[in-house]
Amino acid sequence: MTTVAAYAAPAAKAPLERTTIERRPVGEFDVLIDIKFAGICHSDIHQVREGWGQAIFPMVPGHEIAGVVSEVGPGVTKFKAGDHVGVGCMVDSCRACDNCRAGLEQYCTRGAVMTYNGIGRDGEPTYGGYSQKIVVDENYVVRIPDSLPLDVAAPLLCAGITTYSPLKHWNAGPGKKVAVVGLGGLGHMAVKIAHALGAEVTVLSQSLRKKDDGLKLGADHYYATSDPKTFEELRGTFDLILSTVSAPMDFDALLSLLKTDGALVNVGAPEEPISLNLFSVIAGRKTLAGSSIGGIRETQEMLDFCAEHHIGAEIELIRAEQVNEAYERVLNSDVRYRFVIDTATI
Amino acid sequence: MTTVAAYAAPAAKAPLERTTIERRPVGEFDVLIDIKFAGICHSDIHQVREGWGQAIFPMVPGHEIAGVVSEVGPGVTKFKAGDHVGVGCMVDSCRACDNCRAGLEQYCTRGAVMTYNGIGRDGEPTYGGYSQKIVVDENYVVRIPDSLPLDVAAPLLCAGITTYSPLKHWNAGPGKKVAVVGLGGLGHMAVKIAHALGAEVTVLSQSLRKKDDGLKLGADHYYATSDPKTFEELRGTFDLILSTVSAPMDFDALLSLLKTDGALVNVGAPEEPISLNLFSVIAGRKTLAGSSIGGIRETQEMLDFCAEHHIGAEIELIRAEQVNEAYERVLNSDVRYRFVIDTATI
Repeated sequence: MTTVAAYAAPAAKAPLERTTIERRPVGEFDVLIDIKFAGICHSDIHQVREGWGQAIFPMVPGHEIAGVVSEVGPGVTKFKAGDHVGVGCMVDSCRACDNCRAGLEQYCTRGAVMTYNGIGRDGEPTYGGYSQKIVVDENYVVRIPDSLPLDVAAPLLCAGITTYSPLKHWNAGPGKKVAVVGLGGLGHMAVKIAHALGAEVTVLSQSLRKKDDGLKLGADHYYATSDPKTFEELRGTFDLILSTVSAPMDFDALLSLLKTDGALVNVGAPEEPISLNLFSVIAGRKTLAGSSIGGIRETQEMLDFCAEHHIGAEIELIRAEQVNEAYERVLNSDVRYRFVIDTATI
Repeated sequence: MTTVAAYAAPAAKAPLERTTIERRPVGEFDVLIDIKFAGICHSDIHQVREGWGQAIFPMVPGHEIAGVVSEVGPGVTKFKAGDHVGVGCMVDSCRACDNCRAGLEQYCTRGAVMTYNGIGRDGEPTYGGYSQKIVVDENYVVRIPDSLPLDVAAPLLCAGITTYSPLKHWNAGPGKKVAVVGLGGLGHMAVKIAHALGAEVTVLSQSLRKKDDGLKLGADHYYATSDPKTFEELRGTFDLILSTVSAPMDFDALLSLLKTDGALVNVGAPEEPISLNLFSVIAGRKTLAGSSIGGIRETQEMLDFCAEHHIGAEIELIRAEQVNEAYERVLNSDVRYRFVIDTATI
């Protein structure tokens, strides 16, 4: 066992504070990673505050992990000391169900082991990336190409794959009109990736406050959802709308912006049920769907794609002791566009 | 103009009564049809009672029309006197938009002209199938194969195409597990068609009251949604769930019965908005979709498919004066499985 410094919430809704945790010994197929950077995801806050249901405490959040391999187990074939690697939302799954075998480990029918707030196959709670080291089975570790700096690569492990996967699955690309709802941590990655995939990209944001940023990130158009004219002008426009927002919204209005056979795909997850008029999908054979992160193979594909297109997150690097303040700023949408913890400061 | 006997609701929520209406002269591309049978669809009742919003009165409902051509205009090439034909939910559309040109007239971006409770391109209100004759442009008329009796064919024009179209679009067929929610007018057609397409078919009905019927119609399995064990046993089972119910339901529970990447497609339309937890679609990348009838070309394909597989509706033939009583029985789910008006009795 290795004792490692970490930032943890001791109880639901409590502020995070410095502590130590134990990491398991490096097993035969394990990789020991010196964590360099950990992104702060909105879902960290949902879970620390039990917005998604009962959680496990103490909780060390963090599933946007970028670091360097410092040791590998004797059976490891994919990585060696010194490699740049990442860990996302999962650190294990059953490896036997149809989904795991299809590379869709995130939909493991027995339940994937989440990077934190989960229970490992050894029965122990999992602790995430707000810490200095982590031990992970090599099958759940991905390679970060050397051309991607680790700090801007960290958020790709959740925000990047969460948007890349549905954009690919619903065929964003040349000739397709794609709208991204919300220009936050997920949204700004969605804009960069959809643009790099060749789609015509529109941002739908509450206001025009971040319009200049949106256009710089790769959007072709930018509209405010607070302006009713937006919904008249864009009616029936999009092949795909990717909603990254976790606040309640008017889903019927959003569906009216789709073409026939279009899809509104949610990667943001409001804590409360939404209201939906089924005529909004019946008229035009439309789809309301969801998507959760991505599989390990696809996460690697996303990192390689981002390296090829020079895509990293727009980040604000913080010291570990700023994490509680950063949470408040995330909740106020006051971050452009992802906080990343420099784990050397833990 | 031709004066024709019909059954009409003089005002919203009023009982239907015998009256006469005018049909337009037979134009160059028009077909005059002697209506023989008209099915009663639940949506007739929704519209007569303004459950879907303000409607046009007097209203002659009926969009499941089967009859015999008695006269054609000089430009008509597809039909001649004596042909068995059907008319469904639409009698016209713009014919110019992308959807019309793709054979998806039901999603005409300018709005298809509905068979009743609509306004024709001539500015006149449209009147439906509870009448003795109708004049329709040949492009919105379909051929009923001679091997299909007209009385059991009538309900195919709405109930048949409304279920055939999504079953085909979402790939119901061999190796696929398909659930049909509700065993009413639409549901019983969905069971017959999904079975004929080669899918493994499960009926999900409120109770087991119609189980024997369901199995005879072609279902392989039959479960009661009122039994909580149904949702435990069938969790993660289906590729496709087709919901034909227009009553409120627990959509999160239904979505839990889908496999990863499965689709819950609604052809029933509750009058009130539904409640949905977005995690129900995010976990498993699931789809909640809708579908509305089908295009003219696909309606013809459906009729040919039904003739080939000897599929007609299970009907209860009524006299026109029984229509108000029939409406009450539809609302009480007391029909096996479609009322059809013998229009000779109008």
